[in-house]
Amino acid sequence: MSPFDAVSVLTAKRDGRELTDSQIEWVVDAYTRGDVAAEQMSALAMAIVFRGLTRGETAAWTRAMIASGRRMDLGGLPRPTVDKHSTGGVGDKITLPLAPLVAACGAAVPQLSGRGLGHTGGTLDKLKSVRGWRADVAADEMMAILADPGVGAVVCAAGADLAPADRKLYALRDVTGTVESIPLIASSIMSKKIAEGSQALVLDVKVGSGAFMKSLSDARELATAMVELGHDAGMHTVALLTAMDTPLGLSAGNALEVAEAVEVLAGGGPADVVDLTLTLAREMLGAVGLDAVDPADVLRDGRAMDRWRAMLAAQGGDPDAPLPVAREREVLYATESGILTRLDAMAVGVAAWRLGAGRERQGQAVQAGAGVQWHARPGDVVAAGRPLLTLHTDTPHRFAGARAALDGAWAIGDTPPDEPLVIDRIGLVRV
Amino acid sequence: MSPFDAVSVLTAKRDGRELTDSQIEWVVDAYTRGDVAAEQMSALAMAIVFRGLTRGETAAWTRAMIASGRRMDLGGLPRPTVDKHSTGGVGDKITLPLAPLVAACGAAVPQLSGRGLGHTGGTLDKLKSVRGWRADVAADEMMAILADPGVGAVVCAAGADLAPADRKLYALRDVTGTVESIPLIASSIMSKKIAEGSQALVLDVKVGSGAFMKSLSDARELATAMVELGHDAGMHTVALLTAMDTPLGLSAGNALEVAEAVEVLAGGGPADVVDLTLTLAREMLGAVGLDAVDPADVLRDGRAMDRWRAMLAAQGGDPDAPLPVAREREVLYATESGILTRLDAMAVGVAAWRLGAGRERQGQAVQAGAGVQWHARPGDVVAAGRPLLTLHTDTPHRFAGARAALDGAWAIGDTPPDEPLVIDRIGLVRV
Repeated sequence: MSPFDAVSVLTAKRDGRELTDSQIEWVVDAYTRGDVAAEQMSALAMAIVFRGLTRGETAAWTRAMIASGRRMDLGGLPRPTVDKHSTGGVGDKITLPLAPLVAACGAAVPQLSGRGLGHTGGTLDKLKSVRGWRADVAADEMMAILADPGVGAVVCAAGADLAPADRKLYALRDVTGTVESIPLIASSIMSKKIAEGSQALVLDVKVGSGAFMKSLSDARELATAMVELGHDAGMHTVALLTAMDTPLGLSAGNALEVAEAVEVLAGGGPADVVDLTLTLAREMLGAVGLDAVDPADVLRDGRAMDRWRAMLAAQGGDPDAPLPVAREREVLYATESGILTRLDAMAVGVAAWRLGAGRERQGQAVQAGAGVQWHARPGDVVAAGRPLLTLHTDTPHRFAGARAALDGAWAIGDTPPDEPLVIDRIGLVRV
Repeated sequence: MSPFDAVSVLTAKRDGRELTDSQIEWVVDAYTRGDVAAEQMSALAMAIVFRGLTRGETAAWTRAMIASGRRMDLGGLPRPTVDKHSTGGVGDKITLPLAPLVAACGAAVPQLSGRGLGHTGGTLDKLKSVRGWRADVAADEMMAILADPGVGAVVCAAGADLAPADRKLYALRDVTGTVESIPLIASSIMSKKIAEGSQALVLDVKVGSGAFMKSLSDARELATAMVELGHDAGMHTVALLTAMDTPLGLSAGNALEVAEAVEVLAGGGPADVVDLTLTLAREMLGAVGLDAVDPADVLRDGRAMDRWRAMLAAQGGDPDAPLPVAREREVLYATESGILTRLDAMAVGVAAWRLGAGRERQGQAVQAGAGVQWHARPGDVVAAGRPLLTLHTDTPHRFAGARAALDGAWAIGDTPPDEPLVIDRIGLVRV
């Protein structure tokens, strides 16, 4: 008979007591095996929302989730491995240019990603708009792609055996109002990243209206918790806090964002996307001792673009195939002249989602061509009567919902906003 | 499509917002029908443990639970109806003499009870030790017994159609650490009592080590919440707060407590059981305007005993059959002489439970003869070497666990304790 029972563990947390490592190991394992019922785990998760987890509890929880599945071994690769994870933002297509860029600079980049849910898109959904590209890559194939000196980067779906406890727990938290716990969020992200076996990890923690973390203090707490978890697991981990009040770049949607990524790889693209790509690339390269290479050169001279094409081809994608385009579009016009002072990331994200770029529940299909383009960024001059946004969808009944989401989402004035993109860097561990 | 969804209701409560009547109606009904999942309701219950429910929310929750089933109509009876409910204590056999006593005084007494779980016994389990007695009584049979001028009292199992939402929710709370919410406890008790349709209700809210409410402030809060719910539902409701640091009477167990009740009905029995029985009888009679009768007279002259016998017989019981006796007994002796200053109710309750008088899970059988007798009450003089407690069980391997529970459960000193049995009376509603 087990030395623990679910009620005693969850009442301990409910009453504000610290759980022991063995209580945590037991409850995560028993839940994964089905010995602790969903209604018990959801009540525990709600108690954690109110009571929190200490650093020690969070580390134990993360280890227990890693132990629920397979831990990958990337040690046999000829190059250092480094991964990037973003907590999710609107128009965040950075992984697309970043992974081939960093690979072209000499690192191996394993990017195990999820599919999008809600107002932020998923990297796999974006890449699925490339003809022939497939997200499912077996472990040995992944190792071969990472070892290939002409590729070295893979963006694929995480296998079901990577932290299965997290998969089960996240689905439960999603329907029980218990996503909003910083230690559980940190543990969810880091259990997968640690299990993935990369040597180093750069976290892009988004903060602002279009991010999961709305406040800087929450974002800082999450970043610190994740850096601590990575550090405690022996993985070089650094986090950047980056602004997500305004959407990134000039588009949100699947094929629309791939097109923008290709522009960046071709040497153009929106300045904020280029800047953030290079900043993150430098962090990733620095983390594995490859600081001698300047990623700006590699982007400029086309080596990153070559890697992008090789990376797509390695997963069956045709880099020369035209990207899908939505069947219908609708333009929203600026109603006055001046400086665009605000464009709300959440509103744009919800509009893109309603147009068909995202899904409402797991397993739904998304529209490759759907999404939102904006033709000015905060700080740009706009003129009354000129196009401000273009909405794209295959299903025109969706325009109304997208317009409603965008109502009041922008402002035109006379003072350009002053918003730094990178707000802070958390690389040292509190001791 | 429903105007509500479980996640929005439970995140509202999680975030400290007051739920609307229609949100509460919806979530209770949808949970009962299975449209809200157990893991969602348990997370909501945990959020309620932390955030509480306002008086308005508690009333709406209670109405929703009543609406989940049938509401009984006792209006056709020739006598006023009055019920008593105890929140549960060790040795609390008061219902056994009280129901026939109040019926003999002219009221109709419907006592729909539950089976015991944990350290406090259940009234139905106690009565089951009377040969032939059955707890299951159909609604029309119940009405006939209550209308019978020679009976007028029924103690039986609540039908499955009485507040089924409460039944389902209580089972869930029991395994998810969410029993400990005063508004949910109040709502659980009162939904059944209001659905039962009695005109008046007297609540015996126990407070102390052997009670569910350990602190006077919690007990007062629970009593007040229940009196408010009764009042708002148009039922005359009063609550007594009574002490439960010491077990009631001189025995805890099923047949042992029936024997003690018979002693009380015969004009004897422990003074505290007689006192509390008469106090509660006066409250019940006063609540329905029958204050002209003195229940002490009715107890003394044997009319209450006649009703007891008639009440058992009406449900198939043989009042003349000998009560079951446990196969084994073990005596614990006083180790010093002096005044018994303390006998811990919880310890005695756990010992009786471990001896087989109670069950660990729903559906288990209990031993009719098992339990604990104590031969002195706090304030009594005890002598070293004389029997202090007698343990009864059919299964002697249980003695060790009972002795362990009783370790340190009593104290002998020189100052008698001064503990009033009735601590407070809550009959007026806060406005």
